[in-house]
Amino acid sequence: MNLATTIYTFDLLGVAVFAITGALAAAERRMDILTFVLFGTLTGVGGGTLRDVLLHTDHIFWIVDTTYLWACLAASIATWFLAHRFESRRQLLLWADAMGLALFSVLGTQKALAWNAPVIVAIGMGMMTASFGSLLRDTLIGRPPVILNPEIYGTAALLGASSFVLLNAFSISAPVALPLSIAAAFLLRAAALLYDLRLPKYQQRSKS
Amino acid sequence: MNLATTIYTFDLLGVAVFAITGALAAAERRMDILTFVLFGTLTGVGGGTLRDVLLHTDHIFWIVDTTYLWACLAASIATWFLAHRFESRRQLLLWADAMGLALFSVLGTQKALAWNAPVIVAIGMGMMTASFGSLLRDTLIGRPPVILNPEIYGTAALLGASSFVLLNAFSISAPVALPLSIAAAFLLRAAALLYDLRLPKYQQRSKS
Amino acid sequence: MNLATTIYTFDLLGVAVFAITGALAAAERRMDILTFVLFGTLTGVGGGTLRDVLLHTDHIFWIVDTTYLWACLAASIATWFLAHRFESRRQLLLWADAMGLALFSVLGTQKALAWNAPVIVAIGMGMMTASFGSLLRDTLIGRPPVILNPEIYGTAALLGASSFVLLNAFSISAPVALPLSIAAAFLLRAAALLYDLRLPKYQQRSKS
Repeated sequence: MNLATTIYTFDLLGVAVFAITGALAAAERRMDILTFVLFGTLTGVGGGTLRDVLLHTDHIFWIVDTTYLWACLAASIATWFLAHRFESRRQLLLWADAMGLALFSVLGTQKALAWNAPVIVAIGMGMMTASFGSLLRDTLIGRPPVILNPEIYGTAALLGASSFVLLNAFSISAPVALPLSIAAAFLLRAAALLYDLRLPKYQQRSKS
Repeated sequence: MNLATTIYTFDLLGVAVFAITGALAAAERRMDILTFVLFGTLTGVGGGTLRDVLLHTDHIFWIVDTTYLWACLAASIATWFLAHRFESRRQLLLWADAMGLALFSVLGTQKALAWNAPVIVAIGMGMMTASFGSLLRDTLIGRPPVILNPEIYGTAALLGASSFVLLNAFSISAPVALPLSIAAAFLLRAAALLYDLRLPKYQQRSKS
Repeated sequence: MNLATTIYTFDLLGVAVFAITGALAAAERRMDILTFVLFGTLTGVGGGTLRDVLLHTDHIFWIVDTTYLWACLAASIATWFLAHRFESRRQLLLWADAMGLALFSVLGTQKALAWNAPVIVAIGMGMMTASFGSLLRDTLIGRPPVILNPEIYGTAALLGASSFVLLNAFSISAPVALPLSIAAAFLLRAAALLYDLRLPKYQQRSKS
């Protein structure tokens, strides 16, 4: 499997797991099947769409290749039929979200670098790709966005994006750098979910 | 009246009725006249703007032809002076919204096809053009978005968009296909408003 | 100091003061430092980003010149360390917001005119540049957007944008027109904050 195929597979996987989290959010609110598809699609492609609009790519990725839209459709409809089999849909949502976060933070950065974005822009694009879909999902169903939760979320996206930039700067080839950075982001988010890790908050600082 | 003029007239009409719903939402919240214009304009051109940004058209439609903005201005100001004459502003809002929904679901699809978008993308663009303006309006005034209401809304947009694609695929000419699909979308939404039609919800499925 | 440098300095200043308001909003909600940076950056560059996307400029301003992003980072981190020194962070936020509003309403209009936008579009772009960042900030932290507050806010942006258009139409040179219009917008917003000025609301009209 060559690099382009690997990236494409990971990208589709990221879109699908985010679509599942969108459909699960619709399940939580007892929506109809069209809303499952709507939430699944918005969450699945939302982050990458914003990235492509801001980067001024020639075309938005899901207009060039509609496989991404079909993946969202399939994942959302599968969730409609299968979600009730899971004990805790909330847990499933959080873990699928963690996987999407890890994949997109790195792949978003990689695409931005491929379009010659400066390093700080590429890191921002990675974080945006990873979090904008879930932000849309949470805002639409009126839940506080997961990115504003106290547990480490944006930090995991930042770790994924910046490890890839760093490995890239040291000329580590993409087939090594991609999985490493994705794993780093996922492990940090997983640790945050399991051990409830948090960054220090503003209130904890003493008044000088 | 040739085809281009008909489309243009319908498009302006859609912008104006959506602008009225935006201004009516501002009336509901007792806003000032500038906010009427702001809500009217956002609701009127919001959907088409997102469509044009995602399709990468040469220019956003209301930058090329400012008539659309003047239509929003006029509709919003007229609403400021006339809204109190209506018995039920909420009813007026819902029916104007249904009209805008029907017009934009079909015209958005038509514009996407004209820019060579694949069929599934064109349908998505139609639904987006029809619903993004009202989504902005409802989010800004802090009301649950009408597209997430239980009554059929997105389904009506889907019907309008997909009938046009279908008629188009069978080479039915636009002067016939456009009014037919607009009527289909409007009638379904009207039936939903009158008879409170709903898609089955997730909760109603039995646990297997 | 030539005109381009003046505009650039004002623009950076606007981005920085808006970034401070974003970070102060994060402080209000006791967020962590990454969220300070996130809110600061979104508020700082949000308005100009929307303007550039809609105007179809060659590139978004902060991709071409990352100084804007570094300014957001620096302003957000400085706010994290210094915000507790201020008696009333809410007051500081409102006054910094007023300054950003005045700067961006005029600079956004100026940039739109430079890209050959029609006058009504340029005014709209100025108002959008001035208010979209704060709209994002307020929506994300779940506070009613400051632009929907009863006190004059959008009106001040409208005054800044339209005075610049007017002075420009009378061939007043930019080095004179820019500070004059910025001052006009700032003074109106300052008066609104100090004396609680409001536009008449819809409810106050008699039923005819």
